[in-house]
Amino acid sequence: MNAFILPKMTWPEVKEALKTAEVALIPIGAQEQHGHLIAEGCDSYRAEAFSARLAEKCFPKVIVTPTINYGISPHHMDFPGTITLRPETLINLLEDIVSSLNKHGIKKFLFVNGHGGNNAPMAVAAENIARKYDVEIGHTLFVRAAKNTIKEEIHSEYFGHACEREVSECLYMVPEIVRKDRIEKADMYDSFTVKYAEDNYVTLVHQFNELTKNGNLGDPTKGSYELGEKIIEEALENISIFIDEFIASKRS
Amino acid sequence: MNAFILPKMTWPEVKEALKTAEVALIPIGAQEQHGHLIAEGCDSYRAEAFSARLAEKCFPKVIVTPTINYGISPHHMDFPGTITLRPETLINLLEDIVSSLNKHGIKKFLFVNGHGGNNAPMAVAAENIARKYDVEIGHTLFVRAAKNTIKEEIHSEYFGHACEREVSECLYMVPEIVRKDRIEKADMYDSFTVKYAEDNYVTLVHQFNELTKNGNLGDPTKGSYELGEKIIEEALENISIFIDEFIASKRS
Amino acid sequence: MNAFILPKMTWPEVKEALKTAEVALIPIGAQEQHGHLIAEGCDSYRAEAFSARLAEKCFPKVIVTPTINYGISPHHMDFPGTITLRPETLINLLEDIVSSLNKHGIKKFLFVNGHGGNNAPMAVAAENIARKYDVEIGHTLFVRAAKNTIKEEIHSEYFGHACEREVSECLYMVPEIVRKDRIEKADMYDSFTVKYAEDNYVTLVHQFNELTKNGNLGDPTKGSYELGEKIIEEALENISIFIDEFIASKRS
Amino acid sequence: MNAFILPKMTWPEVKEALKTAEVALIPIGAQEQHGHLIAEGCDSYRAEAFSARLAEKCFPKVIVTPTINYGISPHHMDFPGTITLRPETLINLLEDIVSSLNKHGIKKFLFVNGHGGNNAPMAVAAENIARKYDVEIGHTLFVRAAKNTIKEEIHSEYFGHACEREVSECLYMVPEIVRKDRIEKADMYDSFTVKYAEDNYVTLVHQFNELTKNGNLGDPTKGSYELGEKIIEEALENISIFIDEFIASKRS
Amino acid sequence: MNAFILPKMTWPEVKEALKTAEVALIPIGAQEQHGHLIAEGCDSYRAEAFSARLAEKCFPKVIVTPTINYGISPHHMDFPGTITLRPETLINLLEDIVSSLNKHGIKKFLFVNGHGGNNAPMAVAAENIARKYDVEIGHTLFVRAAKNTIKEEIHSEYFGHACEREVSECLYMVPEIVRKDRIEKADMYDSFTVKYAEDNYVTLVHQFNELTKNGNLGDPTKGSYELGEKIIEEALENISIFIDEFIASKRS
Amino acid sequence: MNAFILPKMTWPEVKEALKTAEVALIPIGAQEQHGHLIAEGCDSYRAEAFSARLAEKCFPKVIVTPTINYGISPHHMDFPGTITLRPETLINLLEDIVSSLNKHGIKKFLFVNGHGGNNAPMAVAAENIARKYDVEIGHTLFVRAAKNTIKEEIHSEYFGHACEREVSECLYMVPEIVRKDRIEKADMYDSFTVKYAEDNYVTLVHQFNELTKNGNLGDPTKGSYELGEKIIEEALENISIFIDEFIASKRS
Repeated sequence: MNAFILPKMTWPEVKEALKTAEVALIPIGAQEQHGHLIAEGCDSYRAEAFSARLAEKCFPKVIVTPTINYGISPHHMDFPGTITLRPETLINLLEDIVSSLNKHGIKKFLFVNGHGGNNAPMAVAAENIARKYDVEIGHTLFVRAAKNTIKEEIHSEYFGHACEREVSECLYMVPEIVRKDRIEKADMYDSFTVKYAEDNYVTLVHQFNELTKNGNLGDPTKGSYELGEKIIEEALENISIFIDEFIASKRS
Repeated sequence: MNAFILPKMTWPEVKEALKTAEVALIPIGAQEQHGHLIAEGCDSYRAEAFSARLAEKCFPKVIVTPTINYGISPHHMDFPGTITLRPETLINLLEDIVSSLNKHGIKKFLFVNGHGGNNAPMAVAAENIARKYDVEIGHTLFVRAAKNTIKEEIHSEYFGHACEREVSECLYMVPEIVRKDRIEKADMYDSFTVKYAEDNYVTLVHQFNELTKNGNLGDPTKGSYELGEKIIEEALENISIFIDEFIASKRS
Repeated sequence: MNAFILPKMTWPEVKEALKTAEVALIPIGAQEQHGHLIAEGCDSYRAEAFSARLAEKCFPKVIVTPTINYGISPHHMDFPGTITLRPETLINLLEDIVSSLNKHGIKKFLFVNGHGGNNAPMAVAAENIARKYDVEIGHTLFVRAAKNTIKEEIHSEYFGHACEREVSECLYMVPEIVRKDRIEKADMYDSFTVKYAEDNYVTLVHQFNELTKNGNLGDPTKGSYELGEKIIEEALENISIFIDEFIASKRS
Repeated sequence: MNAFILPKMTWPEVKEALKTAEVALIPIGAQEQHGHLIAEGCDSYRAEAFSARLAEKCFPKVIVTPTINYGISPHHMDFPGTITLRPETLINLLEDIVSSLNKHGIKKFLFVNGHGGNNAPMAVAAENIARKYDVEIGHTLFVRAAKNTIKEEIHSEYFGHACEREVSECLYMVPEIVRKDRIEKADMYDSFTVKYAEDNYVTLVHQFNELTKNGNLGDPTKGSYELGEKIIEEALENISIFIDEFIASKRS
Repeated sequence: MNAFILPKMTWPEVKEALKTAEVALIPIGAQEQHGHLIAEGCDSYRAEAFSARLAEKCFPKVIVTPTINYGISPHHMDFPGTITLRPETLINLLEDIVSSLNKHGIKKFLFVNGHGGNNAPMAVAAENIARKYDVEIGHTLFVRAAKNTIKEEIHSEYFGHACEREVSECLYMVPEIVRKDRIEKADMYDSFTVKYAEDNYVTLVHQFNELTKNGNLGDPTKGSYELGEKIIEEALENISIFIDEFIASKRS
Repeated sequence: MNAFILPKMTWPEVKEALKTAEVALIPIGAQEQHGHLIAEGCDSYRAEAFSARLAEKCFPKVIVTPTINYGISPHHMDFPGTITLRPETLINLLEDIVSSLNKHGIKKFLFVNGHGGNNAPMAVAAENIARKYDVEIGHTLFVRAAKNTIKEEIHSEYFGHACEREVSECLYMVPEIVRKDRIEKADMYDSFTVKYAEDNYVTLVHQFNELTKNGNLGDPTKGSYELGEKIIEEALENISIFIDEFIASKRS
C-alpha cells in the first residue's frame, strides 16, 4: 500500500511527504462494547483502516495521523470493557494534534470519525480549533458518505451500532475482530427511551442498556463482506471527491 | 396566560408550583444577525415565546427558567452586532441552571433551543449534566418538532436561518421584531463552502458570509403568519406529547 | 423610546448605530428570591429597564446588549426558585460578550449590575477582561449612583435586598413584578451571622435564611413610586455623566 | 511570643495544638511596588506580622498558616518588581489550603488580607470554598478593623496604598522595610481615571501609574510609629472579638 | 498469543476476563521523530508491543487497554511529523481511562510508558488519579526495568532516544519500523545545552535540535536484535515480579 | 549580606538592580511534616535561605523572588499540619511569577526547589512556561547539586526527607527550626510499598505513613552543622557555575 501514515514514517520521510500532502486525516475511534459479535476496538480499527485506504486513494495528497483509540461512550458504560473520555479530553486532544501539525505547515484537516457518540464533541472541537488556529477543518462520521448504499440496503428501524451496516464494514476491512459465530439480531426494548434515543424531534440522554439487551442494534445477521465493500467503497469515493475539492478551494 | 414562568414568580409562588411541576424548560437563544428582516434577538425571543406557550399548554406540569440570551454564533461574527459564547460557557451555564433547580427538587429537564448553532454544545452539555447530577434531560431544536409542516411547506434547497420558516415563526409569535418592508430572498453564493456547509456527508467549518451576502437563507418572502401558526402549533403539539411521556416514564 | 437595544435591531441597523455608539452597556441580573413581594427576576428586570433608560438618555452614544438573566446567588439557594451561577461562569460570559463586541469595534464597556452578589465576580471579570483585550471597562451596581437619595431617604439598619429601596425601583420601572398586597417588613434574626454578613470589618460567608425569615431586608412598606423615581433619576443622571466623561477621555 | 505558627511547628506540636485551636488564620500578601518608601513585600510582611500578633492575642485558639507571598496586582505592573497572580491562581491556592486543613479537622477560617487588590478574588474564593467544603469562612482586609482610628486620624482625600496609614503600620510592625529617608507625599494626577478609580458609583479598571507618579497615595510624611500602634491595636482588638464570637457561634 | 487485550475482545469476553484480571496496563507512546532510522510511532509501537508481551507473561492476571498514541514531545517539534500534547491533555486522558475501568471493578493500574518526555506528566497524573479515585497506581518507563543490561551493555555518554538501546528494542519487537540502511551515530553538538539537558544537577528546558543534528543520541550502530532481546526480557521479568507483588499486596 | 531579594526592595531599587541582574531565582518550598525533629516549614525555609546565599554569591547578577511557601505534599497528609497544593495550582503560580517578571525584562529563570514532591509538577511547569513565554528556564532540587558530598557522606539505604542530609542543611542554614532534643532514626516499615516508593524501576503512588512511623527517613542522628556546611557549599558552588554559564549562553 502506498500511503503517508505518519507513525510509520521517519522524519526525513515526513519532510518529503509534506512537499505534496495538503490535508491531514485524523482517525477517531472508541473503546466500546459492540455486542457479542465485534471486538470493542471496532470504531478505532474501522477509522484507522478507512483512513489508510483513503490515504492510499488520495496519495500523495494526504497524510494520516496516529489513531485516537478512545472516544465518548458514557452511554455504553454499563457493558464491561467500555472506556469513555470526557468531551473536553477529546476536544483538547484534537486541538493538540491540529496545532502541532499546523506548525509543520498543514492548513487543512479532516476528522475521520468512526463513532457516532463522538459527533457532537467533534463538531464543537472543529468549530473552536478552526477559528483559533486559522485552519480549515472538515469532519465526518465517514459511513454517512455511503448515503446511497445505506438507503438502498439497510432496512432495520434502528441501526448504527453493532448492526448489519457495521458488521459488514468490519468483514470488509478488519474481519479479525468479528466473532462470526456470535452474530445475532438486536434484542431491543420497546420503551419511551428507545422512542426518543435519537432521530426524533427531542433527543433524550440515555444508556444503551435501556435500548438493547445484547448491545446490538438492527439485524447484524444481514451483514456481509459484499455489503461492507459496497458501503466502504462508496464512502471512499465520496470523501475522496471532497478532498479533491477541499484542496482545490481558495476560501479567503 | 396561565403558566409557571420562574422570573415572574415570587418564591412562595414557586414553592406552590413545585407541588405539581415536574419538568423545567430552559429556553436557549442567541444574539446573532438574521438578515435585514429580523432583529438579532430572534432566537432568544422565539425560544422564550415558544417555551411560554408550551408551559401554558402543559400547565401546571412544567416551569420555565429565565431565557439564555446568548448562544454559539462564531459563524455569524462577520455581521455587526453578533455576539458569540465559547461552547464551554454555554455548557457551564446549563450545568449551573440544572444543578440549581435539582436542589429545588426538579429531576427532569428539557432544553428548548432556538438556534441550530447551539445544537452540538447543547448535546455535549446534556450528556455531561444528566450523568453528573443523575437527572433526566431531553434537548430539542424545537422547530424540528414541526416535521410534517416543514416537509410539506418548505421547498427551498437551503433554509434554516432568516428563511421562510423562521420569519413565519416570528410573524406568529413575535411580529414586533420583523422588518416587514425588508423581507427579501437570500442572496447566496454558489461555492464549495455552501456545498459542505451542512447536511452533507462531510461538514465544513464555515463563516455565514461565505454562504450568503445578505445573511438570509432560502426565500423569506414565502413566509406568513399562517405558516408560522402551522409550524408552531405542530411543534407545540408534538413536544407536549413528549412531555407527557417524559413525566409518565419510570426509567430506572 | 429611542435607544440602541442590540437584540431589537437588525444587523444593518447595528452597523449604522456603530457609527455613533462608543460604549456598550451590559445589563447583569439574577434569578433569585426577593421575598413575598417581588418576582424572582427582579434584578434582571431592573438592570434591563435601567439600561434601556440610560441608553435613551445617552442616545446615540451607547448600545445595550441582551440581558444576562442569571447571577451569583448561592446565599439565596434555600429559597425555592433561586438559580445560581458559579462565579467563573459569569466571568466567562462577560468575557465572551466583551470580546465579541470588541471585534465589532467597541472599546468601552459599562457593566450595569442589578445584584450585589455579582459585585466581586464582576470586579474580577472587569479587571481580567480589560487587560486581556485592551479595552476600557467600568462597572457599577447601578443603584449606588443614587448616593444622595439613599442617604437622605433610606433609614433602615439593614437594606439592599427586597427592601424599601428595591421595591421603589420596581414600582417606578417594572411595577408588574411587584405583589402590592404582599409588601411587609423584613423578619430579621438577631444573630452573629447578621452582625458580620456585610458592611463590617470582617465579612462572613452566610446564607440569606440565616438573616431573614421572609427573605426581605429593611422595611419595604416605606417604598413608593415616588421614591423609586428619585432613586432611578439620580442614578441615571450620575451614570450619564460618567458616560460622557468616559467617551471624552483619552487614556493613553 | 506564644502563638501557633504552623511552619514553625513539628507535626507532634501541631497535633497537640489542634486540641485547642479552632480557627485557622491565612495571611495573604502581595509582591507590589509601594513607592520609594516601603519595600515591595510590604503587604506580605504586614499580613504575616499582623496574623502572628493576632495568634498571640488569641492563643491557644488559632493557628496561622504560611503566608501567601503573592497577590493580585495587575494595576501596579508598570512599576519594576511587581508580580501579579491571575485571580484564579489565588482562588485555587486558598482552596487547597482550606481543603488540606479541613482534613486535619479545622472547620473555621479567617483570611487575613493585607492588600486591597485581593479583596474581590478573596471574596469569590471564600464564597466558593465555604460551600464546597462545608466550612465557615470570614475574610477581612485587616486594616478595615481599625475603623475609628482611620476615621479620626487619616484626612487625605485618597489613601490606602503607600500612604500615611500604611507606612505607620510598617513602622510599628516591620520597620526594617521602610526607607525613612525616602518618605514623601503622593505625586497625584488630576484626571478622569483618578475620579473613578474607586470609592465612586462607577469603578473603572485602571493602572496605578495613571493615578500617581511616585506610586504613593495620600501623605506618608504624616505617618508614625504611634499612629501605626493605634491602628494595629484597634484592628487586633476588633478582630479578636470577631474570633471569640466565631468560635462561640453554632450556626447550623 | 494468549493475553487480554481490551480492544480485541467483545464485552462478554471482557466480562469473563475480569474474573481473574486485577491489574490494567495502560500503554503510553508518542508521535515523535526518532532520527533517520526509526519511524515516528516508535514509542507507541514499543509500549504496545511490550504491554502485550507482559500481558501474555502475566496471563490471566492483567488486561491491556488501547494504546495512547500521543505523548509530550514539545522538545522535538522542530523535526517534521512530531505531534505533542499539552501535559494536561495526557493527564486528563489517563484520568478518563482509569475512572472508566474503575467502574468496571479494576483497582490496580500500571502505566507502561515508552517515552521519557511523558515521565513528569505521567507522575503528576498518577499521584492525582490514585488519590482522587482511591485506586492503586504504579508507573514505569518500562525500559528502566532492564537496569542490569543497560549498565552492562550501553556505554555511550548520552543515550535514551534513537540510540543503540532503542533501536535494539525495535529490532526485537517491531523490526518493521526500523530503516536498517539508515542507522548511524548521533551527530551531537558540544554545548551548554547538552551539558544541562538532563541527568545533571540543574535541568534546562531545551529543544532536541540543540542537542543533535540528525535526531539521534548515542551510537545506534551498536544496536542488535540480541541486545533488544536481552533488554526486553530483563524488563519483562522485573515488571512481572512487580505485578505479582502488586496483586499480592494488601495496602490498607 | 549583599543580595537582590525582591520583597525587601523598593521599586526604584529594583529598577536599578535590573540593570545588572539577568536571572531570577524562584524559591519553592512546602508546608509538610518533617518528623519530630524539624518544623513543617523546613523546605520553604531551606529554599529561601539557599536562594539568598546563592544571590549573595552571584551578586549582582541574580534577583530572588518571594518564596512559594506551599508545595505538593499529598503523600504526607496523614501527618497533622501538612498542607498540599494541587499540581496545577503550583504550575499556575510559577507561570504567573515568570510572566510577571518577563514583563520587567527578565528572560532567564532558575526554579530553586527544596522539596522532592515538587519535582514532577515543577518540570511540567518549566517545560510549559519556557515555551509559552519564550524564556529560558532551569530547575533544580538544589541539594542534588551536592553530588560528591552526598555520595561520600550519606550511607543510609533510604534518605531524602527528615534524614541526616536534611537535618544537616537545617543546622547550617536555619538551626532555629530543628528540635535538637528530638533527633532520632527513622522508624521504617519493611514492605512492598517501601520497595517501590521510588528509585526503582516502577514507582508506586504511596503515603508516607506507609513507609515510616515517625515521618523520618534514614538516620538523622548522623547529621551535623559541618555536614550541612559541606552539602550547602558544594551545592552553592555548582549552581553558581551553572548560573555563570546560563548568563553567558546565547541560545536563541
